[in-house]
Amino acid sequence: MVFRNTVPGFRNPSKAWSTLGGVSVAVFPGSFDPITLGHLDIVRRGATLFDSVIIGVARNAAKKALLELDDRLRLARLAVADLPNVTVEAIPGLLVDFCREREASTIVKGLRSGSDLDDEVPMAAMNRHLGGVETVFVPASGALLHVASTLVRDVARYGGDISDLVTPEVATAVYAALGTRP
Amino acid sequence: MVFRNTVPGFRNPSKAWSTLGGVSVAVFPGSFDPITLGHLDIVRRGATLFDSVIIGVARNAAKKALLELDDRLRLARLAVADLPNVTVEAIPGLLVDFCREREASTIVKGLRSGSDLDDEVPMAAMNRHLGGVETVFVPASGALLHVASTLVRDVARYGGDISDLVTPEVATAVYAALGTRP
Amino acid sequence: MVFRNTVPGFRNPSKAWSTLGGVSVAVFPGSFDPITLGHLDIVRRGATLFDSVIIGVARNAAKKALLELDDRLRLARLAVADLPNVTVEAIPGLLVDFCREREASTIVKGLRSGSDLDDEVPMAAMNRHLGGVETVFVPASGALLHVASTLVRDVARYGGDISDLVTPEVATAVYAALGTRP
Amino acid sequence: MVFRNTVPGFRNPSKAWSTLGGVSVAVFPGSFDPITLGHLDIVRRGATLFDSVIIGVARNAAKKALLELDDRLRLARLAVADLPNVTVEAIPGLLVDFCREREASTIVKGLRSGSDLDDEVPMAAMNRHLGGVETVFVPASGALLHVASTLVRDVARYGGDISDLVTPEVATAVYAALGTRP
Amino acid sequence: MVFRNTVPGFRNPSKAWSTLGGVSVAVFPGSFDPITLGHLDIVRRGATLFDSVIIGVARNAAKKALLELDDRLRLARLAVADLPNVTVEAIPGLLVDFCREREASTIVKGLRSGSDLDDEVPMAAMNRHLGGVETVFVPASGALLHVASTLVRDVARYGGDISDLVTPEVATAVYAALGTRP
Amino acid sequence: MVFRNTVPGFRNPSKAWSTLGGVSVAVFPGSFDPITLGHLDIVRRGATLFDSVIIGVARNAAKKALLELDDRLRLARLAVADLPNVTVEAIPGLLVDFCREREASTIVKGLRSGSDLDDEVPMAAMNRHLGGVETVFVPASGALLHVASTLVRDVARYGGDISDLVTPEVATAVYAALGTRP
Repeated sequence: MVFRNTVPGFRNPSKAWSTLGGVSVAVFPGSFDPITLGHLDIVRRGATLFDSVIIGVARNAAKKALLELDDRLRLARLAVADLPNVTVEAIPGLLVDFCREREASTIVKGLRSGSDLDDEVPMAAMNRHLGGVETVFVPASGALLHVASTLVRDVARYGGDISDLVTPEVATAVYAALGTRP
Repeated sequence: MVFRNTVPGFRNPSKAWSTLGGVSVAVFPGSFDPITLGHLDIVRRGATLFDSVIIGVARNAAKKALLELDDRLRLARLAVADLPNVTVEAIPGLLVDFCREREASTIVKGLRSGSDLDDEVPMAAMNRHLGGVETVFVPASGALLHVASTLVRDVARYGGDISDLVTPEVATAVYAALGTRP
Repeated sequence: MVFRNTVPGFRNPSKAWSTLGGVSVAVFPGSFDPITLGHLDIVRRGATLFDSVIIGVARNAAKKALLELDDRLRLARLAVADLPNVTVEAIPGLLVDFCREREASTIVKGLRSGSDLDDEVPMAAMNRHLGGVETVFVPASGALLHVASTLVRDVARYGGDISDLVTPEVATAVYAALGTRP
Repeated sequence: MVFRNTVPGFRNPSKAWSTLGGVSVAVFPGSFDPITLGHLDIVRRGATLFDSVIIGVARNAAKKALLELDDRLRLARLAVADLPNVTVEAIPGLLVDFCREREASTIVKGLRSGSDLDDEVPMAAMNRHLGGVETVFVPASGALLHVASTLVRDVARYGGDISDLVTPEVATAVYAALGTRP
Repeated sequence: MVFRNTVPGFRNPSKAWSTLGGVSVAVFPGSFDPITLGHLDIVRRGATLFDSVIIGVARNAAKKALLELDDRLRLARLAVADLPNVTVEAIPGLLVDFCREREASTIVKGLRSGSDLDDEVPMAAMNRHLGGVETVFVPASGALLHVASTLVRDVARYGGDISDLVTPEVATAVYAALGTRP
Repeated sequence: MVFRNTVPGFRNPSKAWSTLGGVSVAVFPGSFDPITLGHLDIVRRGATLFDSVIIGVARNAAKKALLELDDRLRLARLAVADLPNVTVEAIPGLLVDFCREREASTIVKGLRSGSDLDDEVPMAAMNRHLGGVETVFVPASGALLHVASTLVRDVARYGGDISDLVTPEVATAVYAALGTRP
């Protein structure tokens, strides 16, 4: 069909989304500093949508993370131990390179608000441009809107109770890293 | 794991996303009055993500559609004739009932902007609440932001050229319904 | 203090917010077609913030309401019967005139999203301009984002279950008005 | 009434909003680095809504403030000296803990835009979750949209005139801290 | 330079923006039902930016206007009588066709909020796609956020005072059309 | 006409927009760290709208830039060498002071999203307040949404290919500054 080529920028996405032998793989990227119940909600939903989901933990070079990369990896692995098709890995470089190596055709992200989307759209377009990797967004559960890593750290910094927001192991690690206690 | 139940509203989504015998089915709902290249971009991307995609054409009871339901169905079928795992059906009633009957666990929607998301989030929450059906969002291609049904109808109403925005069959039907020509 | 007058548009709000003998009165305006648990969440929160809250039911001249004004008033009264400082009245004309007659210095509104705010800000500025009435916004509970009158009507129209979204009396009235049943 | 418990996350807010002996207390939190006429507009409006308003000045551990905490407290106190029911205090730790100690049931915030709201909603949900403290939003006056602490500092950094944006004492302090003059 | 062609959709805009013999012409389109002081603020700013500004009054086929097209034209002409480089015309068909006939290379629009922008971007992209006509946005004055045609009609419908929002001639016409008086 | 003064904050903009002898000058401000094809798209469109466009490169005191100011200036000059009415200069202090010195009555900005606008509106209001300089916004091309300086640096940091996003000279400089290669 000719019409598909008449609009500038319209590209055939079928190669990008090839499921590579029938197994669909998605990457859920983030800092996970720390992983929260909000993340786990998105992961669990992604795990039913794709054959395999890789939680990709970014090194976060730009800003200093509270938790070391190894701790972030370990805590994420503990939190998803009961999900057989979810694994956790560090992203050593560019996200699209990581997706290509893992034969993942899709990036999964949670969305909280319109502002979130506005931030995400250029990144999604970039990852599509660079590697033909598509991004799908899952709306955050309304009851978990407050369960964000930033807020979790802020609350724990002053000894607030984060036990409803993260796994017990994460809570212990966050309080330890901050030198506080609930 | 206990922590999953401590946050109000946090529900185990695994049943909702059960892929029902290994075949993932998604519904892409809308009025499709008419189907545009923007819709087809989302459909094609969805068709690589899911085993099967059903374009669900709403009767659109609230507002008068330009094209009859039968025409909207026929034109959508023509437009996706080359996509083996995409079908087109009318949604006779509630979207979640339709999803349940078709064993579709997911609704796919395109997103243009933060305002779009703000409109969609309550609907997604409602469909999750009513039937455990999840919604995933695919960002519209930046080069196709203008290719919306409303704008297509507005342009054609005054004899503007819509041949870059829809399939040839759709263009013919829209001009005929409006009594205009390019 | 002089500086308060140097910025254009900066006005002394003290008159506007005078609590008129120590009793603070707020109006919560809307169509309430029908009143939902989402509305009740805002009302209950408003009822602890103000000495008295008036649910102001607009006649809704612009668009045809599903329920008659009398029914909307009756159902709202039933729903807040256990809240001693909440009353329900029809707004016969302009909201600011109604506020002035009831000696209400404040309008209370629920907010779902940034788009909601963008819609509300000009109205709030208008009501401040016309009558010195201020508007305060209460964020909708994340777990109730889907409980909007429009969605309730849409669900009920096709026989969907709205019993978790409205009071039993409202559910009965909505199904009756639509000629459907769950 | 039973229906209130059927929606996940719907909680009885009456305890949270208890006005504690009939006196309503609200906290207006921020960095106030420095306090501006925009802040004062919100404070004055809040001061007519609540029996007592506490301007809560955060220590701002995360980012380096321009003005010392003591200066920010002193300048805020000077600016509200004519408002008998407004006081100024430092927030030593978690905002909800501070609210609890001061028996404040409400947080007041100004809102400039939809993006502001998107940022604030998770924080409001967190403070509700942690301590049952509600947040109400007051829309910023359209004529004061530019009067933000960040812009005030940026303008003063290059010797711009901030005399229309802050009190005279604040202007003096900001220029002194930056080593500039208008 | 080659690089300009390597990004899909990147088009050379110089033809589109040709100022056609040195005279820059812009169209400010709308329903102007009625023209308000908010419109006039944008028009006056546009009139200093372009050599010539045409207020283009749409027939508004989709929804019933309060004022007849002739009245809307007449009132707009009265309101800009003191601006020598501003004219008022009806747009008989497609906006881009009108721009082409008037040799206008630019559309000017006022923006109130992020939601406004989200609505306008697809239209701007469409007008660029159809006719190479660019759109520039001017932010609405914060002090005039409430001065919108819709709100003016709503206020006048119930006899509210609109004398601060429109010209005297517009006020007279609006009250007459509604059968109300202030 | 009297009505123009009846709305608080409504100011006569004619002085602000005086084109100063018939030549319209606009400043396109930014960090340009580095200049991208997205910037060039806005510049080229601005260059047809105004007689003269000055790319104003901010020193960016607040955050450390990747490229030195001299490099950012040099690369911007190379990129616009074919545009006769575009020049490049450093902004030594306040943007409005720079505009006044260059007799520029307008600031030009690109807009990507509603969140962008929400960020820009207070700055535009400040520049209008301080120096009577107006801001006009040009919507970013949908096909270039991903071409932002931040994303360009992120991609190049890990050796990603930025040759479609910037000029060849910029690509060389960015890789050199980061010590990476594609």
